[in-house]
Amino acid sequence: MNILAVGSIAYDSIKTPFASGKGVLGGSLTYFSLAAKYFSRVSIVGVVGQDFKRQHLNLLRKHGINLSGLKIANGKTFRWSGIYNYDLNNRETLSTQLNVFKNFNPLISPRHQNIKTVFLGNIDPVLQLQVLKQIKSPKLVVVDTMNYWIEKKRKILRRVLRQTDILIINESEARQLAGQYNLSKAAGLIVGQMEATRRAGKATLLIKQGEYGLLMFHRRGWFSLPAIPLERVFDPTGAGDSFAGGFVGCLASQKTVTDRALKKAALYGTIMASFAVEKLGPFGLTSLSRAKINTRLNALRLITRI
Amino acid sequence: MNILAVGSIAYDSIKTPFASGKGVLGGSLTYFSLAAKYFSRVSIVGVVGQDFKRQHLNLLRKHGINLSGLKIANGKTFRWSGIYNYDLNNRETLSTQLNVFKNFNPLISPRHQNIKTVFLGNIDPVLQLQVLKQIKSPKLVVVDTMNYWIEKKRKILRRVLRQTDILIINESEARQLAGQYNLSKAAGLIVGQMEATRRAGKATLLIKQGEYGLLMFHRRGWFSLPAIPLERVFDPTGAGDSFAGGFVGCLASQKTVTDRALKKAALYGTIMASFAVEKLGPFGLTSLSRAKINTRLNALRLITRI
Repeated sequence: MNILAVGSIAYDSIKTPFASGKGVLGGSLTYFSLAAKYFSRVSIVGVVGQDFKRQHLNLLRKHGINLSGLKIANGKTFRWSGIYNYDLNNRETLSTQLNVFKNFNPLISPRHQNIKTVFLGNIDPVLQLQVLKQIKSPKLVVVDTMNYWIEKKRKILRRVLRQTDILIINESEARQLAGQYNLSKAAGLIVGQMEATRRAGKATLLIKQGEYGLLMFHRRGWFSLPAIPLERVFDPTGAGDSFAGGFVGCLASQKTVTDRALKKAALYGTIMASFAVEKLGPFGLTSLSRAKINTRLNALRLITRI
Repeated sequence: MNILAVGSIAYDSIKTPFASGKGVLGGSLTYFSLAAKYFSRVSIVGVVGQDFKRQHLNLLRKHGINLSGLKIANGKTFRWSGIYNYDLNNRETLSTQLNVFKNFNPLISPRHQNIKTVFLGNIDPVLQLQVLKQIKSPKLVVVDTMNYWIEKKRKILRRVLRQTDILIINESEARQLAGQYNLSKAAGLIVGQMEATRRAGKATLLIKQGEYGLLMFHRRGWFSLPAIPLERVFDPTGAGDSFAGGFVGCLASQKTVTDRALKKAALYGTIMASFAVEKLGPFGLTSLSRAKINTRLNALRLITRI
């Protein structure tokens, strides 16, 4: 199955206690697509500047990512700089230079408008809504967002959520979005918002908990999945997007979105995130095989088997 | 099966955003025994002051706890006062008055010396070692400790650990004890210390992660179990001891300590902790039934079923 993914491509400057680098290939689209491609075909819609390196275009192409929706604009590629301390769950953003991303206007080509599975990375909800308007008959819409948009553009974000099948956010974002500290109550409120104009039971909320794994909530109940205890975590950047890539990639490769399919997708998402954090940048994702992925999947199954 | 539990009994003053109380019955022994008694017989060894209320003695007695090892000493009962903010995972200790606990000298009666399953609550490792010396042929020794003892009495704590089958601590304590931030590596180091004088594969480490559940580690691998998402968490005081109570209680009721038995015990521990936090003090534990416990057990199984 095909996935249309809209989001950012960036050059990151990253500092962790274990690794650091400047101008590291990053952005939600990069991690998402390099994780999703093991399961489904991915077409990305994004923008880079004229400084974007040919080798990075080639890397994405080599991995079978469809780049026909990637615009190379006048100016510089989006840049993000951040630092992690020992508690890799928390990071501090040192600088954000939007550059060409400032004028990002996601135009979806006629061919892409027919894709049924859409991933909207963490971008302005105005743009997310603009993308959704162009998609002819979406079957599965998966959305990411962040504290900034929840605070600044809550109203338009709500409009996006009412068209969202699966929302992937972290704990503090879930609390902020619901205006409720208790995560259990917050999840109910968010799914309620997502289902405001649709039949109950349609929406799923995925709460990312970093090294603690994830919680999945829908009207049928909760599902919990731990992360894999890793001896070497070099760089958590992109872990959430890699999770989303494995998750949406796996889900799109299955016929229908059953509870079983959602759980399987969450397993693969967790695996892809675990590979992503073992190297600086997205390079933990670029030399995998289905055999390597399945070996780790079996490890995760063992950890959770009662 | 019988369990011998050594630890503290206290009157707590607790303030959370949802509930508060003064002179609330508490201490590790209280939570532990009220949770464990649903699975095994429990004898406690501890000390209270002359201010300890008859109604609280009666409460413990009514629940079948053997109090022959409970000393009523001259002076006041141990008092602890603490405050939780919205993030119930963190608490601030406002005051600790050891009172009669200062001169606690755990003497084990000849009858109790024959008990095979021993739980050593979070007390001075000097006292933990003193208890272990009196036990004739312990088969299962489960130990709790805290940052204070890890910092102040590391050497003697190590001696305790070499006689410990199962150590139950939280994440920061595991990191501190191992001198290693990475939890995966830390677990290996701690189990190594515990097995220093015994054959490999004998020791189990349980890392409590509060609302995120727990990680269990031994030479055969990891096991992860989430907590139950709760809509009402009133008071996390005693959650760890309630977990230990359900865990050790269940384990003692089984013939041998297999991996299967350890997992089952972890499930019941998690359930008992979930009941404990729903009320102020230990009163979430005092009116349960096996039916109520098993209903929640089934909920936990559903949440974790892949």
